[in-house]
Amino acid sequence: MNIETIMKPHDRLAAYLAEDMERVGTLIRERMASEHAPRIPEVTAHLVEAGGKRLRPLLTLAAARMCGYDGPYHVHLAATVEFIHTATLLHDDVVDESQQRRGRPTANLLWDNQSSVLVGDYLFARSFQLMTEPGSMRVMRILSNAAATIAEGEVLQLTAAQNLATDESVYLQVIRGKTAALFSAATEVGGVIADADDAQVQALFDYGDALGIAFQIVDDLLDYQGETGTTGKNVGDDFRERKLTLPVIKAVAKADAEERTFWVRTIEKGRQEDGDLDHALGLMRKHGTLSATQADALSWAAKAKIAIDLLPQHDVKDMLLDLADYVVSRIS
Amino acid sequence: MNIETIMKPHDRLAAYLAEDMERVGTLIRERMASEHAPRIPEVTAHLVEAGGKRLRPLLTLAAARMCGYDGPYHVHLAATVEFIHTATLLHDDVVDESQQRRGRPTANLLWDNQSSVLVGDYLFARSFQLMTEPGSMRVMRILSNAAATIAEGEVLQLTAAQNLATDESVYLQVIRGKTAALFSAATEVGGVIADADDAQVQALFDYGDALGIAFQIVDDLLDYQGETGTTGKNVGDDFRERKLTLPVIKAVAKADAEERTFWVRTIEKGRQEDGDLDHALGLMRKHGTLSATQADALSWAAKAKIAIDLLPQHDVKDMLLDLADYVVSRIS
Repeated sequence: MNIETIMKPHDRLAAYLAEDMERVGTLIRERMASEHAPRIPEVTAHLVEAGGKRLRPLLTLAAARMCGYDGPYHVHLAATVEFIHTATLLHDDVVDESQQRRGRPTANLLWDNQSSVLVGDYLFARSFQLMTEPGSMRVMRILSNAAATIAEGEVLQLTAAQNLATDESVYLQVIRGKTAALFSAATEVGGVIADADDAQVQALFDYGDALGIAFQIVDDLLDYQGETGTTGKNVGDDFRERKLTLPVIKAVAKADAEERTFWVRTIEKGRQEDGDLDHALGLMRKHGTLSATQADALSWAAKAKIAIDLLPQHDVKDMLLDLADYVVSRIS
Repeated sequence: MNIETIMKPHDRLAAYLAEDMERVGTLIRERMASEHAPRIPEVTAHLVEAGGKRLRPLLTLAAARMCGYDGPYHVHLAATVEFIHTATLLHDDVVDESQQRRGRPTANLLWDNQSSVLVGDYLFARSFQLMTEPGSMRVMRILSNAAATIAEGEVLQLTAAQNLATDESVYLQVIRGKTAALFSAATEVGGVIADADDAQVQALFDYGDALGIAFQIVDDLLDYQGETGTTGKNVGDDFRERKLTLPVIKAVAKADAEERTFWVRTIEKGRQEDGDLDHALGLMRKHGTLSATQADALSWAAKAKIAIDLLPQHDVKDMLLDLADYVVSRIS
């Protein structure tokens, strides 16, 4: 068996794009510097060097490479996308009052909320500086639209939480905003900078959109059926925080009067007691909402693969197809 | 006496630019909307409709008009500048845990910190969407640089607070960042969009920079010598929050050993007792640092006026000259 085939698809992508990723890393370190405020690179480094998968910049590089781009600017766009992502993580941890991220204490815990808010703002501004550098109006429009959609999704999530009227279409808007918008912008700008034709750019957008949605549905599902050790999350965190994610939304939709009373008490009113999480899991199993959620994730992964079907044969394309399978493999 | 001459200069500017300001207001209301998340326009409207002076968008419109611009895009840039300003206000109030802004409860108090952080992010993103619309790379570079400088100044302020080593040069960096950067970007892009020559654009930048610095020094001075009723701030707020502003920095520089012990205890260690504010004011008077701070503010206002000396005669130019005097008139 070839070593390549047993590596995870994003590791294969990272290996294939290693030189470009090296440039992205250098650019990120360069641009997270601040002549006057050393707190900025300290906070940013804490997060950047915790070693996320850097999936989003990989997607931009992959799309550009697959479309035959040979200029230097896909590196700027990949760094832009990672800066936007890092800024949203800093702000998310303040909003969620999180204590841990990537297995380490969060910046808001190590420094303070103030630093997380302001360093996040700095990274947003840096991302906008970076995105102007290729000089493409279309790229700037895509990325600034994505930034607005992300913030909109986060605000929508805030108001949708604890509200049992949140249905699947609102859930889809929320995760399109908070997760898929940056995936789809990442792949789309890779195609645009490579001057790919409209059908290819659309295909890349659709791939990123569907991949991001599948990714987030899996994340939300693992919150109910993952094992704490492997996911880095505790089972039931979303339930305790009264977030309405897909498995619960589907269960609420099928609830009889008594079950509805349970959801009103635990999610809307937040009066949770011992054993409520188990009861909630029981209701989800009774109505098959965990497996229905899993089916949705698999279906979005399939959509992602179909979307890039029209792109020409390329090693990177194979890795992106595998990546779509891999994203949902944690729940299959 | 003509009614015009007894109006405040920014009111005269607003009257002169009333049609343009009307368009800016319409654009702001349009772009602060959100199809999916009604919380966004609620929070934004709370701040926007509290009726700040809209000084920054006025500066952009004034600069463009003075340089003979007759296109539509100064309106977009003015709205951009106001969105950046509004976003920073939302985040500042979270960072400072403020309770009041423009005489009303802050958004973080009426809603929550989460909404202020995320709606601020949304307005940042909206400002970047807006700034792409005129299609000028130079304008985008100026405004995205300004956004980075603002965030950098705020982070620097965070680390400079409570640190007696903060000297006048650090103070200048902080206020250039948190206040002057947006003033100078506002005037500069007005010139750039009007295709003014390099000397004029530089003059407009210098005017905005000096005006912003004067404006912030006055604000910091009024914290020690204003009357609570007229400024909307309580005398000594900065002292209680242990912020190192110019009057204190000058007093620390002249402190003997005993006075230094006082500043270390009250500002660095934050162990404040009854009567400390009066004692601090006494030290500032003894060393003449309040009047020295006032002299600095007047000098920056004079620099602002000298900067635009080379611009051709124009009604708007007269108003900008008067505005520089007016900004420091509250302390003269």
